[in-house]
Amino acid sequence: MSETTSGHFHSRRLCVIGVGLIGGSLVRALRAAGAVDEVVGAGRREAPLRKALELGVVDRYDTDLVAAVAGADMVVVAVPLGAIGAVLATVAGHLADDAVLTDVGSAKGSVVSDAVRVFGGVPPRFVPGHPIAGTEKSGVEASFPELFQHRRTILTPLLETDIHALGRVRTMWETVGSEVVEMGVQHHDAVLAATSHLPHMLAYALVECLANLDDRAEIFRYAAGGFRDFTRIASSDPVMWRDVCVANREALLAVLGRFRDDLGRLMAAIDTGDTDTVTAVFQRAKTARDNLYRD
Amino acid sequence: MSETTSGHFHSRRLCVIGVGLIGGSLVRALRAAGAVDEVVGAGRREAPLRKALELGVVDRYDTDLVAAVAGADMVVVAVPLGAIGAVLATVAGHLADDAVLTDVGSAKGSVVSDAVRVFGGVPPRFVPGHPIAGTEKSGVEASFPELFQHRRTILTPLLETDIHALGRVRTMWETVGSEVVEMGVQHHDAVLAATSHLPHMLAYALVECLANLDDRAEIFRYAAGGFRDFTRIASSDPVMWRDVCVANREALLAVLGRFRDDLGRLMAAIDTGDTDTVTAVFQRAKTARDNLYRD
Repeated sequence: MSETTSGHFHSRRLCVIGVGLIGGSLVRALRAAGAVDEVVGAGRREAPLRKALELGVVDRYDTDLVAAVAGADMVVVAVPLGAIGAVLATVAGHLADDAVLTDVGSAKGSVVSDAVRVFGGVPPRFVPGHPIAGTEKSGVEASFPELFQHRRTILTPLLETDIHALGRVRTMWETVGSEVVEMGVQHHDAVLAATSHLPHMLAYALVECLANLDDRAEIFRYAAGGFRDFTRIASSDPVMWRDVCVANREALLAVLGRFRDDLGRLMAAIDTGDTDTVTAVFQRAKTARDNLYRD
Repeated sequence: MSETTSGHFHSRRLCVIGVGLIGGSLVRALRAAGAVDEVVGAGRREAPLRKALELGVVDRYDTDLVAAVAGADMVVVAVPLGAIGAVLATVAGHLADDAVLTDVGSAKGSVVSDAVRVFGGVPPRFVPGHPIAGTEKSGVEASFPELFQHRRTILTPLLETDIHALGRVRTMWETVGSEVVEMGVQHHDAVLAATSHLPHMLAYALVECLANLDDRAEIFRYAAGGFRDFTRIASSDPVMWRDVCVANREALLAVLGRFRDDLGRLMAAIDTGDTDTVTAVFQRAKTARDNLYRD
């Protein structure tokens, strides 16, 4: 983990490719901070871009990515992980000389691979990033400027990353209230597989499991408050999460395997009436969770 | 499912055995409704009872259960499932002739078995009950009168259950704002295993899994908002939940097995890059969850 010098962030023209919850919230927050002169929205489909224009999130938009990035000094790629490779391929060679390129993907190994494939190496002015923020909602309508406040943003710069480009991306996220940390690509992917991707898989699998039971209508009727909280993340965007499963497959499967083993041990303890083990698991988990949050 | 006549609930002397989150909240709500003249707290340990007296939740208390239930026309057993059998054995033969006995255990088969063992059959004036309400907190300090509002309470009367006793327990729960439904014992246990007991096992197992990883300190640091909600129920009382695992072992293991199979299928789809299956699971889960809640 290393630190770069923080400072003032300002963009003359920021292009955000993919104006959804994350892209939209970033732009709203930068506008609120007076940190950007002009915002250009870009994306494949026009409807969400028009919506972003109506909401005042972008000043103009273009479905032609090459036109959209022209003259931008900051380009933020905020599309689902599975679309990042195609976006990089489209804008390659069309970025301004002073442009810094970054992304917000929740896996970083796949994004770095995409960059290597497109550019033949990781461009010095490309800074892989990941704001650890979000809700189960999607789309620019759900975006709000406070999304990144008191949240962490992880940057995974490489040896070839330009220190000034890194500094610009760092100060951009600090400007919207985020605490910025740096770590290695693989480490990021392992940590996020455990803390974010695994819980999402469990929430999806739980709702799927219950929806497959014969008396599902009645079962859902008797779900209590805990169930509502527990399954909230199962309302997340299926396409975004499919992409996460592809992009972070290896790290995700590793932690899923560990979880399944742990669950199997708990099941065996319940089955054999080994209440000491059951209580110990619950107590360790409660202690860890209570230490983490006070709510 | 059958309906009994609702009406006005009033207790001259209510004895609550186990004055924790549920017992304390029930009494607070009944007091707020002016539905009870005198409340006697009872339990094994004196400290929580003294606390309940200080908080004005009970009018007096006794660690001698036989003395505590004397003259009470309503006796609510609100101790963890594993302690219900011993409570029933202690009070058997000491209840007033007009006393109605009920419990709040989150599994009902084990409670009915306890009653059969203690009384040689289910007493007509014993009404097994379960308010589907709670938080991850425990203890009388965490109790509050609104806990049961807009929540469901399930009663699992048996053929031998006295219709008037059933009516009294029903109106008691309606008085505190709960919607009362009746269902069979086994059906209750299967439904609750799926909607409540299974999610708790997953939350405990997830936190346990992450706490066992080498870089656990760092991993917990990068947990985002979804993780906080998802793991809230892992802060629940370990002893109470150990008892649930013992009491509802069969139904819980059945649904845990189904979940583990579903999770295995999802893992296989991720492993083989079967994105159609992955997306379909996520989409079905999202649709089911979105239909259930608007948040």
